[in-house]
Amino acid sequence: MRVPVLIINFKNYREGYGDRGLDICRYASRVSVEYGLDIYVAPPTLMLMRFIEHCGADIYVQHADPVTYGAYTGSIPVEALKDMGVKGVIINHSEKQLEVRQIIELVDKARQYGLVSVVCADTPVLGKIIALAGPTAIALEPPELIGSGIAVSRARPEIIVEGVKSIKSISRDIVVLAGAGISSRDDVEKALRLGSEGVLVASAIMKARDPGKVIEDFAQAMVNYSK
Amino acid sequence: MRVPVLIINFKNYREGYGDRGLDICRYASRVSVEYGLDIYVAPPTLMLMRFIEHCGADIYVQHADPVTYGAYTGSIPVEALKDMGVKGVIINHSEKQLEVRQIIELVDKARQYGLVSVVCADTPVLGKIIALAGPTAIALEPPELIGSGIAVSRARPEIIVEGVKSIKSISRDIVVLAGAGISSRDDVEKALRLGSEGVLVASAIMKARDPGKVIEDFAQAMVNYSK
Amino acid sequence: MRVPVLIINFKNYREGYGDRGLDICRYASRVSVEYGLDIYVAPPTLMLMRFIEHCGADIYVQHADPVTYGAYTGSIPVEALKDMGVKGVIINHSEKQLEVRQIIELVDKARQYGLVSVVCADTPVLGKIIALAGPTAIALEPPELIGSGIAVSRARPEIIVEGVKSIKSISRDIVVLAGAGISSRDDVEKALRLGSEGVLVASAIMKARDPGKVIEDFAQAMVNYSK
Amino acid sequence: MRVPVLIINFKNYREGYGDRGLDICRYASRVSVEYGLDIYVAPPTLMLMRFIEHCGADIYVQHADPVTYGAYTGSIPVEALKDMGVKGVIINHSEKQLEVRQIIELVDKARQYGLVSVVCADTPVLGKIIALAGPTAIALEPPELIGSGIAVSRARPEIIVEGVKSIKSISRDIVVLAGAGISSRDDVEKALRLGSEGVLVASAIMKARDPGKVIEDFAQAMVNYSK
Repeated sequence: MRVPVLIINFKNYREGYGDRGLDICRYASRVSVEYGLDIYVAPPTLMLMRFIEHCGADIYVQHADPVTYGAYTGSIPVEALKDMGVKGVIINHSEKQLEVRQIIELVDKARQYGLVSVVCADTPVLGKIIALAGPTAIALEPPELIGSGIAVSRARPEIIVEGVKSIKSISRDIVVLAGAGISSRDDVEKALRLGSEGVLVASAIMKARDPGKVIEDFAQAMVNYSK
Repeated sequence: MRVPVLIINFKNYREGYGDRGLDICRYASRVSVEYGLDIYVAPPTLMLMRFIEHCGADIYVQHADPVTYGAYTGSIPVEALKDMGVKGVIINHSEKQLEVRQIIELVDKARQYGLVSVVCADTPVLGKIIALAGPTAIALEPPELIGSGIAVSRARPEIIVEGVKSIKSISRDIVVLAGAGISSRDDVEKALRLGSEGVLVASAIMKARDPGKVIEDFAQAMVNYSK
Repeated sequence: MRVPVLIINFKNYREGYGDRGLDICRYASRVSVEYGLDIYVAPPTLMLMRFIEHCGADIYVQHADPVTYGAYTGSIPVEALKDMGVKGVIINHSEKQLEVRQIIELVDKARQYGLVSVVCADTPVLGKIIALAGPTAIALEPPELIGSGIAVSRARPEIIVEGVKSIKSISRDIVVLAGAGISSRDDVEKALRLGSEGVLVASAIMKARDPGKVIEDFAQAMVNYSK
Repeated sequence: MRVPVLIINFKNYREGYGDRGLDICRYASRVSVEYGLDIYVAPPTLMLMRFIEHCGADIYVQHADPVTYGAYTGSIPVEALKDMGVKGVIINHSEKQLEVRQIIELVDKARQYGLVSVVCADTPVLGKIIALAGPTAIALEPPELIGSGIAVSRARPEIIVEGVKSIKSISRDIVVLAGAGISSRDDVEKALRLGSEGVLVASAIMKARDPGKVIEDFAQAMVNYSK
């Protein structure tokens, strides 16, 4: 994972299902190329195939099950995701929480099949614990700020500072992202200044009047900061 | 749900992902028309869109979450399934077990969006409990026989007999299906004779050398029995 | 279980641990004899032995595990409770919720060892489901009213009415109790009038300035109503 | 915690409930004094009070809930255990598994009330994760060997070696114990040689014809090794 990085979580917002969703994805793809920045898109699971076929961006899945092909009714197998062309998996989002044992199992399975793993953690302590599992990235997301419009980088800067410190004390290779409430260029810049290496955003883009503008704004903030 | 009924659960067998999966689905669709029999197909969740677009059969999903569109990262929303054209949802398969409270919630949500609900139960007692939630159908599946090739209708006929009695004592409208190990025409016929009104099958068709032949065999057994 | 019945849940209130707890228990025992009324006392699990040795009342436990003696680290075995002289077990209190499958297992185990089972249900639907497991009694307790001082019999009378109807439709033998917020003689009387056959109370007695007076009040309300 | 240490888990073996249980406890107390060795006894939760009153040994509980006094029906509050004189708590035994988040919460609560915390871990990875929570001790117990009579120190020595290394890399202060299948003096000695600082045993003592003899044997092995 090349930093800084922008991950767009479509959740299951209705906006992500139709043409508007594809537009956002294509815009992300274009900005990614234009700014030389890694941008990943995590559309609704039911729409994965369409996004892979019709949008140039790298596609992540919002959740997966640590299984292969086989007798697993109702699962989303990591192995099948790999074969479909999915590049990464978001794990333990606060809207899809897992037990720590399950997180470890899923990180391992993602590694086995060559998928990037981005694990969400709601506290620095959990971040440190998850770091031991060796995921590609950890996103620090205090759940009370998710969808709030109040950025973690403003309201709880210490979570990013402590989280980065905790996680990097276990492994310097793990990318640390900031999530929850990131809404503006300034929020993005502040998150990077506090030590994070990217952001995980959802409603700020999905619910924006002009999502393309927001993606471009965030990309500029990242590129400017990295100079 | 018109009885007798045949439901084909693709699980996440690799066979269900490629062209072979679509072939099975199309065959099911053709046999359904030819024999005037309701046949439903539950492909891998990641492939739902393709099956809806390219196969005439009625499509079920193998599991869903009792949510609408919105901030539900990693979920499979019932509302989105409805809009995609999915007709029904399999609930509480032994490979995707839910708590009873969750089963009730999901049956309610399926009803709200007009989806058929087929709930699996591993014992007659659980079948009776689930009947109180008022699903469209209940499939009796002793987990130890799933994928065994040993049909529930042969090895544990009393589960079907008791299950039918228990469930119908709560509501005569609920369709009772037999699952687990159904492998041959005779198994199907026996299941119907014991009082069930259809079968839920997976490996017998998915792993068959000639899946179309098996579908046709099962359909004949059903039509013959119904005469 | 002879109705009407009064069950006093000590929870883990500090008041239940010391001499005050034993006083409440002894008072319950005395009122029980005086009024010819069944009163059961559920002290803190850690204090069970003391209450059995030093108080004449019939003792219930607030939770148990459906196991026998054996290699069950950290469990509270039903078999050991039976041997200690415990008479009944409260199951699925909203502060100790169990899955429905666990409730069934525990009701069965209690029956096997001759213990009375009192299962809490937060909705009439759950009450009906639990009725299928055949417990001795079901206590209807909407969790939002527990400890509120607002009696279920006043604030949500329909829960008692519907609950009694639902549960008795499955089995007339199951005793239906009202819980949550019962604080006064009037609350008790109203609960009986709505069709319940007793009450499950905690803070109204445990936190009272004069717990003995409250027990006597409640007993009088019950005896008057039964005349 | 002074090392080496011997912890005797009574589980819920019937032998622990009656006079034989008290005899084992008294013997442990006597050997502890005689050999200048720390021996802790974890009797059945329902019997805690009796052991505290009638046996000189330091008493541990086999499981607890991370709560104070209050409205916690069916819980075993850490605060009440402290007041009763309990000295420590065993956490996450494979027969009473907790989620990692719950382990952390319980370790914190034990620390707050001055109780020793001994957390069981079935793998070195889990041991390392738990180490981040800062418990007093971690007991490495591969569940498949528990009660087997096959000592972890013989069958899976690498678990002890790796576990000690993993845990000490997080904190040198955490005591590392070996559990599962320890049956003889040699097993104890081997466990210490591999780097552990004590053992957690159950059936080897509880099911022994002469439990006192086994306690003395184990104590001698420990004292000899420490010389």
